Amino acid sequence: MLLVLSGPSGVGKDAILGRMKKSGDSLEYITTATTRPRRPGEVDGIDYHFITPEAFQQMIARNELLEWANVYGNYYGVPKEPVRQALDRGQDVMVKVDIQGATSIKKIVPQAVFIFVIAPTMEELATRLKQRRTESPFDLALRLRTAEEEIKQMPLFDYVVVNKTDGIDLAVSQIRAIITAEKCRVKPREIVL
Amino acid sequence: MLLVLSGPSGVGKDAILGRMKKSGDSLEYITTATTRPRRPGEVDGIDYHFITPEAFQQMIARNELLEWANVYGNYYGVPKEPVRQALDRGQDVMVKVDIQGATSIKKIVPQAVFIFVIAPTMEELATRLKQRRTESPFDLALRLRTAEEEIKQMPLFDYVVVNKTDGIDLAVSQIRAIITAEKCRVKPREIVL
Repeated sequence: MLLVLSGPSGVGKDAILGRMKKSGDSLEYITTATTRPRRPGEVDGIDYHFITPEAFQQMIARNELLEWANVYGNYYGVPKEPVRQALDRGQDVMVKVDIQGATSIKKIVPQAVFIFVIAPTMEELATRLKQRRTESPFDLALRLRTAEEEIKQMPLFDYVVVNKTDGIDLAVSQIRAIITAEKCRVKPREIVL
Repeated sequence: MLLVLSGPSGVGKDAILGRMKKSGDSLEYITTATTRPRRPGEVDGIDYHFITPEAFQQMIARNELLEWANVYGNYYGVPKEPVRQALDRGQDVMVKVDIQGATSIKKIVPQAVFIFVIAPTMEELATRLKQRRTESPFDLALRLRTAEEEIKQMPLFDYVVVNKTDGIDLAVSQIRAIITAEKCRVKPREIVL
């Protein structure tokens, strides 16, 4: 099973993923490669593989990425090989991508499980992005406008999880329930990669 | 949301339902009407509505049953009105029916969520039916042969939950996860009754 966790910027995907990783479930988490600068507290190889634009271009050229995109001027990409290896071992895999990335993966692996994480309201999303204090006012406005567009992509997804402020435990438990339910499906999703 | 819990006789549907009712979740459970004799420990109106064959025939004649079937010589039926009332209130509903009943409901309400409960093996199912001590040897053989046929109906179902001996908690938690996941679906199942 390939799980695709996605949602607008600032919605709390990283926090959810961090919580899930700590719980010691049997998922394999694929670390995204990116050319964006490391934020304070982020660890290379854990939060992202922070690589140079040149190294990223090489990965594109060698077709080593399941999907990649240029978002707000930075490249993000999901390495293909660890996904394939994990699935071959019968291991369930979770990747975290932005909406653009999720729609790309939907075209290549439509049988993946697509989860859309949203904030309860656009106001709450704005508050969170401001609290992050890593975006300039211009970036902030751009991310909010993008989020409004991104929400229109929701019909491409299987599930939607609302990540409320102080409600991350609920969001994580819903994602766990989705994984459990998907494992109970009579017709398993057959992934060809 | 209409949840249809089904599975071969002896697989533990009643035990699962009993456990779920105790947990105080927000599901409405519809009590099946039946003409079969009450087993020791069963309570009228809780486990089943135990009614006479004449009363059952009247319900059929008045079209008051969502589905009904004659199983092993006894009638079983799900009253339509409490299902419709609960759904109208926006209340999620669970009905417990045998496989024959589930296939009937599938034809009328294909957007229901169909859960198939199975035993890990046919041997285990036989052991459980023997332990129940309510069936004659002839009935027992008939139920086992029927179970083998019934398992072929599994593709009609959305989910399958294995009810292991001493594993009822797992089965119940899987059913809860299925309910949670279904509530997160981007495209809700629209029930027309």
